Amino acid sequence: MGFWKTWFSTPESVSATKTTGFEDHTAAAGDPNANSDRIVFSTERDIDLYELEELCDAVGWSRRPLRKVKKAIEHSFLVASMWQVRGNQRRLIGFARATSDHAFNATIWDVVVHPDFQGKGLGKALMKYVLKKLRSEEISNVTLFADPHVVDFYRGMGFMSDPEGIKGMFWYPH
Amino acid sequence: MGFWKTWFSTPESVSATKTTGFEDHTAAAGDPNANSDRIVFSTERDIDLYELEELCDAVGWSRRPLRKVKKAIEHSFLVASMWQVRGNQRRLIGFARATSDHAFNATIWDVVVHPDFQGKGLGKALMKYVLKKLRSEEISNVTLFADPHVVDFYRGMGFMSDPEGIKGMFWYPH
Repeated sequence: MGFWKTWFSTPESVSATKTTGFEDHTAAAGDPNANSDRIVFSTERDIDLYELEELCDAVGWSRRPLRKVKKAIEHSFLVASMWQVRGNQRRLIGFARATSDHAFNATIWDVVVHPDFQGKGLGKALMKYVLKKLRSEEISNVTLFADPHVVDFYRGMGFMSDPEGIKGMFWYPH
Repeated sequence: MGFWKTWFSTPESVSATKTTGFEDHTAAAGDPNANSDRIVFSTERDIDLYELEELCDAVGWSRRPLRKVKKAIEHSFLVASMWQVRGNQRRLIGFARATSDHAFNATIWDVVVHPDFQGKGLGKALMKYVLKKLRSEEISNVTLFADPHVVDFYRGMGFMSDPEGIKGMFWYPH
């Protein structure tokens, strides 16, 4: 059980749980089983691709070839996942990853929180975890491309759109 | 001289020179030595960091620690350089690099063309070279962050700003 071992033994997941206090947070959401629930973060890359696909399905994303998803995870600088832990069960409820040059820039992709867990501040907690990890690697320029309905969410986290007129631009193959 | 060996023997640099026909292009710019000049592209990463710094100085960029520049080049998915070749001399006149997850996304950074070589279509040639290399790797989503004065340049190359309201956003450490 290498996955669990790494997961629970990494200082970051422990400290993230401690510092964000999700046990209380989840309890406040009114779940009768909340007392036994914990929300845990991990940078472990050994994620079950089918479980990740299920999470992405839940928010209505188009399916992508798992072979490419696997490759993208392998070549991301940071892979962050958020889990609901109840007893010895765990469920993937959030995900984000970032590409980077390991020096100056990081770009965050594929931020997703399961609909059952939205509206509880967990998206913000996941992003804080991502930013904390990127800062710890001395990345000074963090970027992302936000869909219109989440621009205000990211603005609330300190992201700026078009700072000094800089425009995010896209090119797709013809 | 591993650098030169790789440089001249890579199929991409040869084909890029052939297909873009820069010898004629440069000749049209009125340089009396144009007949002996060639513009060559390379994906070789073994770039002299001082030469790159000189190029970036020429366009007025803030200096960055060479240690970090080295790391960023090592961890970029693609490093593209543009060279003026005259006899057995070569001069770095353009540069660009891209981060990527090797599967879906690539983000282009640090696009620079030496001022002496601007206004000759070489920036466009460099970007075409970059896009060709990214396409050959099956990257389907190419992004960049454009300063206001180059937004139209990238638009002319098929880049779209804020497609469907998607906003490029930035976060900097406080």
